[in-house]
Amino acid sequence: MTTLVIGANGQIGKQFCEHAHEAGEPIRAMIRHEDQADWFAGRGIETVVADLEDDFAHALDGCDQVVFTAGSGPDTGPDKTLLIDLYGAIRAVDIAAEKGLERFLMVSAMRAEDPMTAPEKLRPYMAAKFAADSHLRRSALPYVILKPGRLTDEAATERFAEGVDEAGDNRISRANVALALVHAVQDKALQNAEFTLLDGERGIADVMV
Amino acid sequence: MTTLVIGANGQIGKQFCEHAHEAGEPIRAMIRHEDQADWFAGRGIETVVADLEDDFAHALDGCDQVVFTAGSGPDTGPDKTLLIDLYGAIRAVDIAAEKGLERFLMVSAMRAEDPMTAPEKLRPYMAAKFAADSHLRRSALPYVILKPGRLTDEAATERFAEGVDEAGDNRISRANVALALVHAVQDKALQNAEFTLLDGERGIADVMV
Repeated sequence: MTTLVIGANGQIGKQFCEHAHEAGEPIRAMIRHEDQADWFAGRGIETVVADLEDDFAHALDGCDQVVFTAGSGPDTGPDKTLLIDLYGAIRAVDIAAEKGLERFLMVSAMRAEDPMTAPEKLRPYMAAKFAADSHLRRSALPYVILKPGRLTDEAATERFAEGVDEAGDNRISRANVALALVHAVQDKALQNAEFTLLDGERGIADVMV
Repeated sequence: MTTLVIGANGQIGKQFCEHAHEAGEPIRAMIRHEDQADWFAGRGIETVVADLEDDFAHALDGCDQVVFTAGSGPDTGPDKTLLIDLYGAIRAVDIAAEKGLERFLMVSAMRAEDPMTAPEKLRPYMAAKFAADSHLRRSALPYVILKPGRLTDEAATERFAEGVDEAGDNRISRANVALALVHAVQDKALQNAEFTLLDGERGIADVMV
């Protein structure tokens, strides 16, 4: 079961690729430019050059599932939010559905299910994630939606919580998100499931059930 | 059959309200601030104060269909595009579907069905319209989607064309769009239909069939 990684060159994407490959998962990293290939080639990870803002359907050929972790979060400009987080995600879902892939794993965001509860400056970004998640739920594809809280650059703790009440905070490291994604990719039984993810005290298999 | 007009205070919205009311169509103009009510009250048009970026579900109570013409087009900032043209539209569709309304009439845009064919600076806006239209098509609501070309402030000609090949140009006046909307509101048989609309030579009943 080969996984196409859209957003492979991002901060979560790279850590996910590294861990998934080490775990023996067949992955293909979608990169925008050929000069991004060295980092992956050096680790023995297959790459495909394709542009999420242009034609990328060929990148899915021969893959069985998609991890979508493109978009660098709420700090990119809203123009890119519309083109990448919204339209890129929707097209990826539609292409995966057309090609009959088996599963789509989306990295969304906490608060995406109710954008107007987010801090005001994050609302436009959350609106894009809301719409992309909604499109995925209504597609024919089995899906997993991960909704991490505020992303940090801390080291992985491999310990998680599912909500703010449990975590006592709203943060999760990108490293932990990457590990949760590896778990989701490996656990094929996870279908049509959604998880809010924060740094916490539990193992991932205990949280993502 | 009462029509809620979302975006009533906009340039197309006001002209639509005026013509629809004159034609005897029961309409309710959704306005954001009470001080916008005078213009409508002076013409005998019912208003309801509600905020598309906040709670507005009550505005739909007692209505049978929705005209969505909010958002001032590609010249607003992309933050507002995400909150109004995308998320506001999606929520309006969802609320209308939950309340069991009979029809949803969306003012979209030419090129919304393929955002990457639009001029580069319009693409983020077209992506938002693409996603909103897609959400409407997948809803339980019968719909009409109008896709006007580049909007002008010319006077109404009451003459239309359905595509660039026929029109020989890519423009349509807001006044003509408003008249086309009145036609769509009156023609209850129009369901799950989409029309590109430009200034042209034909009557609207000949184009919107």
